[in-house]
Amino acid sequence: RVQDPGVVKLAVIPGDGIGPEVIAEAEKVLDAATADSGIRFEKTRFSLGAARFLDTGDTLTDSDLDAIKEHDAILLGAVGGVPGDPRLKDANIERGLLLKLRFELDHYVNLRPSKLYPGVPGPLAEPGDIDFVVVREGTEGPYVGNGGSIRRGTPHEVANETSVNTAFGVERVVRYAFDLAERRSKKVTLVHKTNVLVHAGGIWKRIVDAVSAEHPEVAVDYLHVDAATIFLVTNPGRFDVIVTDNLFGDILTDLAGAVTGGIGLAASGNINPDGAFPSMFEPVHGSAPDIAGQQKADPTAAILSTALLLDHLGLRTESEAVTRAVEADIADRGTAARTTAQIGDSIAARLQA
Amino acid sequence: RVQDPGVVKLAVIPGDGIGPEVIAEAEKVLDAATADSGIRFEKTRFSLGAARFLDTGDTLTDSDLDAIKEHDAILLGAVGGVPGDPRLKDANIERGLLLKLRFELDHYVNLRPSKLYPGVPGPLAEPGDIDFVVVREGTEGPYVGNGGSIRRGTPHEVANETSVNTAFGVERVVRYAFDLAERRSKKVTLVHKTNVLVHAGGIWKRIVDAVSAEHPEVAVDYLHVDAATIFLVTNPGRFDVIVTDNLFGDILTDLAGAVTGGIGLAASGNINPDGAFPSMFEPVHGSAPDIAGQQKADPTAAILSTALLLDHLGLRTESEAVTRAVEADIADRGTAARTTAQIGDSIAARLQA
Ligand SMILES: CC(C)[C@H](C(=O)O)[C@@H](O)C(=O)O
Ligand SMILES: CC(C)[C@H](C(=O)O)[C@@H](O)C(=O)O
Repeated sequence: RVQDPGVVKLAVIPGDGIGPEVIAEAEKVLDAATADSGIRFEKTRFSLGAARFLDTGDTLTDSDLDAIKEHDAILLGAVGGVPGDPRLKDANIERGLLLKLRFELDHYVNLRPSKLYPGVPGPLAEPGDIDFVVVREGTEGPYVGNGGSIRRGTPHEVANETSVNTAFGVERVVRYAFDLAERRSKKVTLVHKTNVLVHAGGIWKRIVDAVSAEHPEVAVDYLHVDAATIFLVTNPGRFDVIVTDNLFGDILTDLAGAVTGGIGLAASGNINPDGAFPSMFEPVHGSAPDIAGQQKADPTAAILSTALLLDHLGLRTESEAVTRAVEADIADRGTAARTTAQIGDSIAARLQA
Repeated sequence: RVQDPGVVKLAVIPGDGIGPEVIAEAEKVLDAATADSGIRFEKTRFSLGAARFLDTGDTLTDSDLDAIKEHDAILLGAVGGVPGDPRLKDANIERGLLLKLRFELDHYVNLRPSKLYPGVPGPLAEPGDIDFVVVREGTEGPYVGNGGSIRRGTPHEVANETSVNTAFGVERVVRYAFDLAERRSKKVTLVHKTNVLVHAGGIWKRIVDAVSAEHPEVAVDYLHVDAATIFLVTNPGRFDVIVTDNLFGDILTDLAGAVTGGIGLAASGNINPDGAFPSMFEPVHGSAPDIAGQQKADPTAAILSTALLLDHLGLRTESEAVTRAVEADIADRGTAARTTAQIGDSIAARLQA
């Protein structure tokens, strides 16, 4: 979606908490990675998140959204205020901003690679070789906001929440997963809970079976979500591409982040593969207000998100250079604490070298 | 619910796969534990599961259910046929049998303790001291079977699945969790996804807040389900009592089983605390048809389920004796493989000694 060749219109949403700090480093690395490429980023900064809401009462206005749509891609830090802040009681920044962007911009592929880089300490005694990608559906399932309650707050309250799944929505993300597996180790694992969620699971199973018939080279596996969490800690090496719904993908990718050394390293892309809307790249972690402004946050996840962004823009070489610089930085990490900026500087310096 | 003092009417459902093998050992241990107690088990065996379905086409008939209701408690092995068996294509043994029992017998507390016993190898490098209980709601949430689809199998299919949550249903299980925490380390963690499942999560949050006000000694914590999976692998020692919905509880308890040495050790109780219906005790693991009949299954989870059963019947001493015998057996486990029966014999022998 690079419209004017050589110029990439990038919407930058630093957000709340540690968001601005990690985004500063991500931008530094993006600039270093593309310095000699003839690519120029034309950036627009959007002040969105809890801080903006507290200031103006707005979460994401129609005009914000229209302006964001004019861009080629989005780089987002993290959004969300201090948990328990009474002024945010009735705000739902997650739904009103983050999920609204994913839904309005039709980010139907939520791409979350999990890789255990050499030298990274993790919680598993024998992690083995971890290198898989979760293709999480991003616009359907239990995330649609199709819920309600009656007699709220009384002993007779009933609160419902409906997962909505369409053949259109499931098929496009399943196709993406199979195409990705063709370029990787040719294995797709569907994760769902078909034995209990008969209808929501049934549509996924049928569509995976159908698409699988078009990919005879790709091995297909099915796991219930509960069993999948077991394998993520006992044998994560068995996974190549996991395809799953919005909620199961949310759960599995946090766990996957943990087993690969923490969500301080986990990158993600919210992708609209059709190119109808700009895709959005963000670390999996949240805004961590408790350590905000202290230069304690690890910007690596935000930086790796720029590698996904570059890849999405077709800038393969630059994307791989960022990944290699991060890998080299991780391999050299000692035990001495570094500031957010020091980590960003070190990775950027490797790209300039 | 022991009706005739001294006699416990026990419904035994060995089930499929490794079910009969592990139940044989559980019965052996139950007999050994109660030999001198004046308690006599009057057992009725129910042939239920995939094998019965293949034989007769029945999963759980009304008369099965009526007969089971006449008992004081139920001991279940595992149910489910060989995955992919074409004859079971349209059977859903899980929903038609296991979930039907939980729902019809109003097993609103699905109790799943997680403890890392000394000497048990697990996947975590530094597990720390793991000892918590998940109180999983058993009769509501996404498990209600309130789903459907239109235009099934066409490109225009829409498949929905509705989570139903009531104040009645949530409050009773939350109260159980707080009462349990009062007898343990006085900490309750609610796990949900309130930022996305606004209605289903909202009712849980409000009720936990309300019940918490009646338990000033109990510390209360909230975690989104994705974050909870991270803590289960990075700091499981932080948990005491987790209270959560049916689906999140399913996912968390498999993961919890994995971090405490595998679901071969994980016991569970499906409890109706009111005593209106018999409670049901079963290992968390499935029927594992691939190793069935080979004496390879670990009966420990089934045996620990009898400890929960004894405790539920008010037979505290006998329950603790079973737990201690299992602990001693685990501590002495060498690396030599033992048969299912050898493990059961060894635990029963410790009780006779
Ligand atoms: C903040 C929240 C709405 C979000 C989600 O559930 O998708 C987050 O957990 C994530 O994974 O990006
Ligand atoms: C077999 C299945 C229906 C069941 C569940 O999802 O509850 C199982 O996974 C469990 O945890 O007991």
